[in-house]
Amino acid sequence: MKVRMEDVAKLAGVSKTTVSRVLNKRGYLSAETVKKVHAAMDELNYRPNVVAQQLFKQETKLVGLIFPTVNNPFYGQLVATMEKQLFKQGFKVLIGNSMNDSNKERLYLQELMAHQVDGLIIGSHNQGVEEYKHTNLPIVAIDSTMNSDIPVVSSDNYMGGTLATELLIDHGCQVIIHTNDPETIKSPAQRRRQAYEDTMTKYGLKPVVYTIDFDLNKIEKQKRIREIFHEHPDVDGMFISNDMDAAMVMDIATQLGRRIPNDLKIVGYDGADMTKLLLPNLTTIVQPIDDMANSAVETLLRRITDGNYRNDQTFPVSVWQGKTG
Amino acid sequence: MKVRMEDVAKLAGVSKTTVSRVLNKRGYLSAETVKKVHAAMDELNYRPNVVAQQLFKQETKLVGLIFPTVNNPFYGQLVATMEKQLFKQGFKVLIGNSMNDSNKERLYLQELMAHQVDGLIIGSHNQGVEEYKHTNLPIVAIDSTMNSDIPVVSSDNYMGGTLATELLIDHGCQVIIHTNDPETIKSPAQRRRQAYEDTMTKYGLKPVVYTIDFDLNKIEKQKRIREIFHEHPDVDGMFISNDMDAAMVMDIATQLGRRIPNDLKIVGYDGADMTKLLLPNLTTIVQPIDDMANSAVETLLRRITDGNYRNDQTFPVSVWQGKTG
Repeated sequence: MKVRMEDVAKLAGVSKTTVSRVLNKRGYLSAETVKKVHAAMDELNYRPNVVAQQLFKQETKLVGLIFPTVNNPFYGQLVATMEKQLFKQGFKVLIGNSMNDSNKERLYLQELMAHQVDGLIIGSHNQGVEEYKHTNLPIVAIDSTMNSDIPVVSSDNYMGGTLATELLIDHGCQVIIHTNDPETIKSPAQRRRQAYEDTMTKYGLKPVVYTIDFDLNKIEKQKRIREIFHEHPDVDGMFISNDMDAAMVMDIATQLGRRIPNDLKIVGYDGADMTKLLLPNLTTIVQPIDDMANSAVETLLRRITDGNYRNDQTFPVSVWQGKTG
Repeated sequence: MKVRMEDVAKLAGVSKTTVSRVLNKRGYLSAETVKKVHAAMDELNYRPNVVAQQLFKQETKLVGLIFPTVNNPFYGQLVATMEKQLFKQGFKVLIGNSMNDSNKERLYLQELMAHQVDGLIIGSHNQGVEEYKHTNLPIVAIDSTMNSDIPVVSSDNYMGGTLATELLIDHGCQVIIHTNDPETIKSPAQRRRQAYEDTMTKYGLKPVVYTIDFDLNKIEKQKRIREIFHEHPDVDGMFISNDMDAAMVMDIATQLGRRIPNDLKIVGYDGADMTKLLLPNLTTIVQPIDDMANSAVETLLRRITDGNYRNDQTFPVSVWQGKTG
């Protein structure tokens, strides 16, 4: 038997009008209400009538951006570029900095829906957020795989991992260590790890991967990095999965008396404009951040007018040849 | 004769209800409507009845942040810290990146009011934005003087300018150049310029100030910096008013064959966490960014419940002793 809107209303303990408002993003709704209605839809496996919804569609000209933080050269540039582009198209931006905290991300998502955003661009890596399934909102993911319905804009992480590892091997490194997110974080950075492992194996070298959690504080990260040098005193090459961690590795290696690049070569990842300005010596893999930002905005805006539009894009990466590797 | 709400409505060509909604941030309003009503209030010099407004007060739990950009270590850290603090207190954040463009800032302000934010924290430097006078919104400014009604949270820019200049003089510099925003931008960074000029004069040295517009693109900034070295080949000390420009100056000076710090000493300004990580060698004046962010949020939240609350705070700065000066 087909589940009706009335059934959802009854289970959620709200009126049918409220369910309709949740579905159509109309009027003021508390996060609590949105949550209850979604829970009921979930339990009953309710699928709304999309055509009926279109009739009620009301634009707010607000777009929500959920990213780990803006206090990072990669995400700062992504968010600033998207904001600029969205503003040109008449949209304003609500941001939520979720770090890698899925509870915070869930709260942000509920609140953004309560504030009736027209669409979302997501760049966080919390696979556990069930609510993305319930929303009829247009969503685009950057460098993040949400679920198969959501278009993804990314750069070629496998190519980046291959370029970084081959660069270190070409420059004579033998003991090459890679750092990455924990494998529980299903970020596309895991493709960089795969490429590293494949490349090492191809050249008959042993892959060694350390995890450095993005959300660790500075002291904990430093401790983790010191462990690497303690456990692998013979390391002569490091492929670090983001530039801020690479800067920290450079700092600690220098404190430990390693000469870069003579004793130790380092390759980072991301290559944001700000990093290239502040730390031009760091050899790194450059993601085309502005292209990715503009592509995500374009895809979202088309998806807002045509719910079936999708255009998954993978941009090539390049090498910024500094002096560290 | 007292101007009434009816007069405003008539001149703006809208209903009295619409004027009331603009004043009370109720219901959906287009930016165009908000603008028309403000223009009429301006022309008639209308001052709303604040007590009557309180009756209609409706919280949205949204706070607007208007800052030049998040793609900058100083503003990125400020915005990320405020967002974290506001989220803890149950508020979500709308951001507008205004650069130093007063038209864009005006549009953002209108839109944020149309979206019914409960308050604003402003860190841009566009004095020309008249709309701030019309809003009854609680506002707090960071490092920016809007008008006398608005509380300001800042760090001690005069102290910072003095510290930077004295540091260069103590280290033996004789020809010390300072860069800053154009004087048309009434940013508190102008206090740094004043301190530089006073300190130079006190020590019998000639102050030389170059303006570098924050909004210039990279190529234009590089050109401007090359001009300084061309026009003052004998420069042996530079006090640069933000760290990103200081990084660019370091880069160009090195290209021109200057050895830092032997031939040329450089002191930057801001000292964001990210800058200290990526460019620890840069000697710089550190603003206590997290303290400023937390203080601005606290003042805003108190002002939302008590419109008369104000607590202007000026935090001391400190020196990050790197290797450039």
